[in-house]
Amino acid sequence: MNSEYRISLDAAELISTGAELLNGRSINSHARTLGGRLNDLGIRIRRDTTVPDDFDDMVDALNGAIERVDLIFLTGGLGPTEDDVTRDAVAHVLGRNVVMDDASLKFVRERYQQYGRTLNAPGERQALIVDGAEPLINRVGVAPGERIETENKVLFLLPGPPRELLAVLEDHVLPWLKEKKRDIPESPSESIFLVCGLGESNLVNLFETHGFPPRGIAVAYGASAGRVELRLSSKGAAEPGILDQARSRIRSLLGSNIVAEERVELEEVIGRLLKDRRATLSTAESCTGGMLGDRITSVSGSSSYYRGGIIAYDNHMKTQWLGVSKDVIEKDGAVSGEVARQMAIGVRERFGTDFGMGITGIAGPGGGTKEKPAGLVYIACSDEHCAIAKRFHFPGGRELVREWSCVTAMDMLRRMMVEDDLAESIG
Amino acid sequence: MNSEYRISLDAAELISTGAELLNGRSINSHARTLGGRLNDLGIRIRRDTTVPDDFDDMVDALNGAIERVDLIFLTGGLGPTEDDVTRDAVAHVLGRNVVMDDASLKFVRERYQQYGRTLNAPGERQALIVDGAEPLINRVGVAPGERIETENKVLFLLPGPPRELLAVLEDHVLPWLKEKKRDIPESPSESIFLVCGLGESNLVNLFETHGFPPRGIAVAYGASAGRVELRLSSKGAAEPGILDQARSRIRSLLGSNIVAEERVELEEVIGRLLKDRRATLSTAESCTGGMLGDRITSVSGSSSYYRGGIIAYDNHMKTQWLGVSKDVIEKDGAVSGEVARQMAIGVRERFGTDFGMGITGIAGPGGGTKEKPAGLVYIACSDEHCAIAKRFHFPGGRELVREWSCVTAMDMLRRMMVEDDLAESIG
Repeated sequence: MNSEYRISLDAAELISTGAELLNGRSINSHARTLGGRLNDLGIRIRRDTTVPDDFDDMVDALNGAIERVDLIFLTGGLGPTEDDVTRDAVAHVLGRNVVMDDASLKFVRERYQQYGRTLNAPGERQALIVDGAEPLINRVGVAPGERIETENKVLFLLPGPPRELLAVLEDHVLPWLKEKKRDIPESPSESIFLVCGLGESNLVNLFETHGFPPRGIAVAYGASAGRVELRLSSKGAAEPGILDQARSRIRSLLGSNIVAEERVELEEVIGRLLKDRRATLSTAESCTGGMLGDRITSVSGSSSYYRGGIIAYDNHMKTQWLGVSKDVIEKDGAVSGEVARQMAIGVRERFGTDFGMGITGIAGPGGGTKEKPAGLVYIACSDEHCAIAKRFHFPGGRELVREWSCVTAMDMLRRMMVEDDLAESIG
Repeated sequence: MNSEYRISLDAAELISTGAELLNGRSINSHARTLGGRLNDLGIRIRRDTTVPDDFDDMVDALNGAIERVDLIFLTGGLGPTEDDVTRDAVAHVLGRNVVMDDASLKFVRERYQQYGRTLNAPGERQALIVDGAEPLINRVGVAPGERIETENKVLFLLPGPPRELLAVLEDHVLPWLKEKKRDIPESPSESIFLVCGLGESNLVNLFETHGFPPRGIAVAYGASAGRVELRLSSKGAAEPGILDQARSRIRSLLGSNIVAEERVELEEVIGRLLKDRRATLSTAESCTGGMLGDRITSVSGSSSYYRGGIIAYDNHMKTQWLGVSKDVIEKDGAVSGEVARQMAIGVRERFGTDFGMGITGIAGPGGGTKEKPAGLVYIACSDEHCAIAKRFHFPGGRELVREWSCVTAMDMLRRMMVEDDLAESIG
């Protein structure tokens, strides 16, 4: 069947709709989400046209796209409100009607029941489809997406909320494209490394010093608080094996700063390490206020290793709930290495876990002094043998300092676990 | 001078260039950056067309934009590499040449010296401009931007890196537009309402039933987990006072579901309410794993009312640390109204605060049963007089259920505080 599909799936265009994408309210993430995934299938997005929720603008944009490519994605405007005009614009361009889809209506009704809401007339509009379209059930929302095939075009209508778009994409669009597409690139010609402990400019410098990357390999950097994602890709028709060699070089250059060799975040990595060891964890947070617990529990199944924690935002709570010494707080201040250490020890003992973590710092923008400026954070990690505290001065404003703190804490725990392994295998 | 400028500055288009914006590597933030700032000046972005670094695509996109509007922004493609073709494409469309600009070359050379690099031929290309353009010095980078005026169009060429774009925008573009634009809106012609307790389709339905909005007023909806931001704006030359009238209608239709009448989030609103009352708060979280504490402490100055909390991810921790009855957990299960209530009471007593909150639920995707499906969450709020628990079934996957839980919990606290006021003023 594959080889017979008559419509070109090599190039696509995207039409994003929504006034909020053009007036500074929201960032348009659709091109990135679609672009990366379509790229993996050998489909290139040739243009992304963002227009307001306006019938004429959408018709004009769609007519333009239809002239240039066969595969078109439209995002947004499928909801219950009057400014949701995507279906109408598409139907108009294709010369079709908009009709109520019974299966979709049943689904929308069930969704509303599930959420304890009554389905009203505006809500029912979400079950309208372009005549002849295949509705694409939306696992995480209400309004279904649609696939519309004409003699020589394929159109996908996708929901605007990024999570819903991703769900419909993964459940329906990518599987369909994989079945129809003739020449999906066989093996990925890129490699991912998640790196902690070295910043972007450290990495650039280190690579320059060591004459990396070799000819034919490109390196791209994706940095956010406390971590860098490195992407190696082989340019053009690089000789086979060159990417493997580059991977080995990276491993020897970066050592234990490499957290993972896949697209993954630290909370998943420490979750796996804890699971492997059947070990448990508890957290004591001050300046991060629960963000560390939040990051850890964002991983499904984290209840098998995470017992919980104390948010000791107030100093009195640090002594009362975590056994931090009053004298130490008076002498060193609440933002100090010893307090972080005692927090990590205290929470580990009280929650009866294998590992404990403590974070205390000044997130800012207020609360800093010359000796202890905003951005100063102490992070500690404890196990049955020891407790280590480290001092950090993180860049950026309040949210960034808190993010850096959480990512760095998780990396400290990772290193403690990985180095334990090393010690055991040597000892 | 102002009133004589001959080119319409009411509508603009944006053309963003760069393959990385279409293959999933980078997110396109230009529309958001420009959109917000232009909106403040009464300039509406009508379309954002993103194309790869390709001469023909850029020429095509620019020709389209020129047909529709007089004010056009192009971003990216001004750098030293061969795929930087923006200037060439613009010059081609306008029938002009690309020329070396001496002042820009001097600036580029100084920049290179400053960074300790030698200016080579590719580097020098950054001083090329479209003949007749006004170069716009780039305070944080190398390549200058350009302003090009023709008889009836104005084009701005802006650097692609977001920091550089913002600098050129603020240093050169916005001041120029402010001088030329005839009718910068004096007072904002829109009103914001943050609403909790009614979903988007409830609102649509309520408004339809009550014949809202009146002629001349448009309503836009920005919904995310647990809250909807309503934006009322007066369309065209609506009579003065019509927006005030619409605001009053909204207040009487939505009552205490209105959280705030400004662009603000719940954590700030409850922070202000707590501060006003000199009241303190503590939290007991299970399925949200610290996210509620994180949201509350994301507000600078939250240490004046938030004491901290317990993350009781494990059932044993709920009894040990919060005094939740073992019998109740056995009888009703850990996900039950009574457990949420006891959590809210327990944390309030233990942390010695005026208010306490408890959340227990099943975030999913695993862990659900037919009686207690994923998405089922109990939230409780306690003060010195009472503790109330409510049952919710939230939509979406793990992260969305957790977000809904936190937003709904904060809204429960808000209502408790606001209704206390009401009771006091009546009693």
